[in-house]
Amino acid sequence: MKEAVNTVPKEWHVPLAEMLQQHLAREPESFHVPGHKYGQAMALLHKYEPDIAERFGKLLEFDITELSGTDDLHAPSGAIAKAQQLAAACFGAEHTYFLVGGSTAGNLAMVLACCEPGELIIVQRHAHKSILNALALAAANVVFLMPESDPSTGLEIPPTLAAVEQALRTYPTAKAVLLTNPSYYGISADLKPYAELVHSYHTLLLVDEAHGAHYGLYEELPTSALKAGADAVVQSTHKTLYAMTMGAMLHVQGDRINRHKLQDVLAMIQSSSPSYPIMASLDIARAMVEVRGAEMFRDGIAAARSFCSWIRESSAYYAIVESNDPQYRMDPLRVVLTTVNGFCTGYELQRRLEGYGCWAEMADERHVVLLFAAPAVQGAAEKLQRALLAIAKACSASELGLITKPIHAMQSASVELPRISEPVLFTRARMRAEDTEWVKLSDAAGRVAAEAIIPYPPGIPVLYPGEKIAPDLLLSISAMAKAGARFQGASDPGMQTIKVRRELAT
Amino acid sequence: MKEAVNTVPKEWHVPLAEMLQQHLAREPESFHVPGHKYGQAMALLHKYEPDIAERFGKLLEFDITELSGTDDLHAPSGAIAKAQQLAAACFGAEHTYFLVGGSTAGNLAMVLACCEPGELIIVQRHAHKSILNALALAAANVVFLMPESDPSTGLEIPPTLAAVEQALRTYPTAKAVLLTNPSYYGISADLKPYAELVHSYHTLLLVDEAHGAHYGLYEELPTSALKAGADAVVQSTHKTLYAMTMGAMLHVQGDRINRHKLQDVLAMIQSSSPSYPIMASLDIARAMVEVRGAEMFRDGIAAARSFCSWIRESSAYYAIVESNDPQYRMDPLRVVLTTVNGFCTGYELQRRLEGYGCWAEMADERHVVLLFAAPAVQGAAEKLQRALLAIAKACSASELGLITKPIHAMQSASVELPRISEPVLFTRARMRAEDTEWVKLSDAAGRVAAEAIIPYPPGIPVLYPGEKIAPDLLLSISAMAKAGARFQGASDPGMQTIKVRRELAT
Repeated sequence: MKEAVNTVPKEWHVPLAEMLQQHLAREPESFHVPGHKYGQAMALLHKYEPDIAERFGKLLEFDITELSGTDDLHAPSGAIAKAQQLAAACFGAEHTYFLVGGSTAGNLAMVLACCEPGELIIVQRHAHKSILNALALAAANVVFLMPESDPSTGLEIPPTLAAVEQALRTYPTAKAVLLTNPSYYGISADLKPYAELVHSYHTLLLVDEAHGAHYGLYEELPTSALKAGADAVVQSTHKTLYAMTMGAMLHVQGDRINRHKLQDVLAMIQSSSPSYPIMASLDIARAMVEVRGAEMFRDGIAAARSFCSWIRESSAYYAIVESNDPQYRMDPLRVVLTTVNGFCTGYELQRRLEGYGCWAEMADERHVVLLFAAPAVQGAAEKLQRALLAIAKACSASELGLITKPIHAMQSASVELPRISEPVLFTRARMRAEDTEWVKLSDAAGRVAAEAIIPYPPGIPVLYPGEKIAPDLLLSISAMAKAGARFQGASDPGMQTIKVRRELAT
Repeated sequence: MKEAVNTVPKEWHVPLAEMLQQHLAREPESFHVPGHKYGQAMALLHKYEPDIAERFGKLLEFDITELSGTDDLHAPSGAIAKAQQLAAACFGAEHTYFLVGGSTAGNLAMVLACCEPGELIIVQRHAHKSILNALALAAANVVFLMPESDPSTGLEIPPTLAAVEQALRTYPTAKAVLLTNPSYYGISADLKPYAELVHSYHTLLLVDEAHGAHYGLYEELPTSALKAGADAVVQSTHKTLYAMTMGAMLHVQGDRINRHKLQDVLAMIQSSSPSYPIMASLDIARAMVEVRGAEMFRDGIAAARSFCSWIRESSAYYAIVESNDPQYRMDPLRVVLTTVNGFCTGYELQRRLEGYGCWAEMADERHVVLLFAAPAVQGAAEKLQRALLAIAKACSASELGLITKPIHAMQSASVELPRISEPVLFTRARMRAEDTEWVKLSDAAGRVAAEAIIPYPPGIPVLYPGEKIAPDLLLSISAMAKAGARFQGASDPGMQTIKVRRELAT
């Protein structure tokens, strides 16, 4: 492997992992939890499962608890505090909170810390379910930035600046604007103008950057939300860097966000016995970024590029889906693949790839999303290419000739959706059956929805329970139903009727 | 090690761990998260940290994500579902949910699933902070079962049946009764009469059994909450069995509790990318209990008993603290140690033990709590005994002669507390400074507290923000203040004044 010539590797320093090593070096006798006692219980497992005993045994020596000198994630002052400081410096934050409950914990914390019950928050509609769960737990009053899609690909793009401005102008008391960037498909915008706009309204910009833990670390990677000026940013360190699954970070900067509240909320929703292996893996993931520098991503990016070139040049059956709009950037480690002429669905392609030992990140009706590794794995791309060729070869001529209707055309066929929603009061409480009724779709304008309406594709709810139904939206729903969209989970999948809140007799 | 003669070891079967082994055996090529790609990134770490790379490397092969065939914790139907079924059978539940966010996640889920905002729940006052956090997230209306202590030891005991009945009679619409059993000090009651009483009021019995994952598994262990008839029970499988830290279980039985809601809430508060190593460790912990049977606890219990006998027979300086009330049982793996004549505090004894390499589970002003391992570690108890002798020997004669006032006497000196509290509406929203004022303690009867009042010892809040102040309680607070109790975090630690909610002008 070639070393980057222009970067001097930083000294290797992992204070949290080193603390664990030092604690072990004292040969501690455990009269405390966990019950496996520094992994010694795994010795008893050897006779049943030597493989499993060996896998777990060595790491469990690191699986300790809050002791004198091992610090406390919920009130850090020692090794955890030091590791968090180094992470903040590396990722460009003023303060970093290590998360052991994944980006889920970070998203819950951002919303709960910024939004008291009934307070208004502006949220990008196409958001991870953890954000929607956070809104319900927070009992927030939510104005959604409605989904918009890239004309060239049909893929979801970030809300326009104009939509964010319209929302802020209409609801200037909003406590925060919450965006998701990049998307699951690796499309992102530079959020700098968004941060400036949001801050001009004296509110907070919160960003779910779960898929962009590597952003901003290297010139070939898109810029990060922190560099753009966001107040709080959640990153899944396990997704594209090297942490263990559930290892994530919440970064903050500036004094707009209340850090005491964030710390309080994180202590509410995360385990009071956080996993030291997961925390140590966050420390290690940060150190790997620092000592390897640009080199860390070079091979992975090269492998993804070379794969895309091969698809473009050699394949009659597959295509790379990427936005050609210069205001968006694609993640160079993420490839969105589709079949030319739609000879099989994304789901089916994913299944067939698995038959050849290639496991994709996700699929939808049309696409397979492939995540290339920062440490490019020898031979991985070649295996993928062989699999794709074999899949095409195994298809019958009729399959390959099959031309499906381009599905995203359905979206553009529909009436344009309003750019922002009416405020929706989220709640954990379920609407009681006796408080709801069905009405004809054409009679539903102005009523409050009592069910989620999720046209598929693209699978983003156009209505949430509690949301007031705009007349424009009804036209849009009718158009989508006529174009053949499916409505998952709707009480009337044909969308002739819709469940709404019963109106009180006045 | 002697095998139990009367138990036929069950066949070793760990469906979740086996699924991971089978997935690996297919030599999968990862184009998905996590970014470490089955631990291959650890190879890059070798030149910096071979020790760490080796510890993590083998386990990270198990650190995968939701793929075809790897099941999904939030909608289990394959290996996770099977592993949960085996756990339910082993621990005596009808259904078991694996938790990757510790007992914290289980306590949050029990409360959130049973309590809509504003609904009333009866809760044992001495509860883990995760329960108090759950009440705030749920915006529950809480009636507390006030703390009671064992006359012989001063240790907290479970609320009496009479207190629970008084609460149920006064608040028959309560959605649930939530108890903590055993306590941190290992005292527990058989909850059977509690379950019968609670069910006679057609409400739910929820139990935080975090410290009792091993209860009910073997005749020498106290009975479990599930055997007693509780509807939902949380156990920290990592505390006394062999799971990784954050690995816990939520067990349910009967049809009183809404399982759909529990599953929904767990999906809200736990990571959408749960850790497979933690889940597999739960599967392994269950299998170890099954194949080892009674043998699993024999050595640990024997070691703890032998240590207690040694203290009783040989030590003039230390004593074992255990209730002599036959209606309570002590955890045979947990030892509560104190110094005779209080020659040093529990905190100080814990610190000195650490100097000899012995790490205790916790300490308070008077006690050190020691958790003996189910797999008794060779030589551990001997090391502890040598340390205790050395500590006593190193004390000056004046220290050893020092007689401190028995601290728990303060509690009995105080006026008796009411057995149940007034209802307290918990909320995430903080009381604004302008809505509060200070009044003289003697004028505070009937006002609503705006701060928590926590006399120490015993460290259990006698007032929460939002709680109405009973006249009896004021007498009790005065008595405790006179007896020298400290009031942590109170705005007036001398308790001449108290912060209350400003009353609206009428």
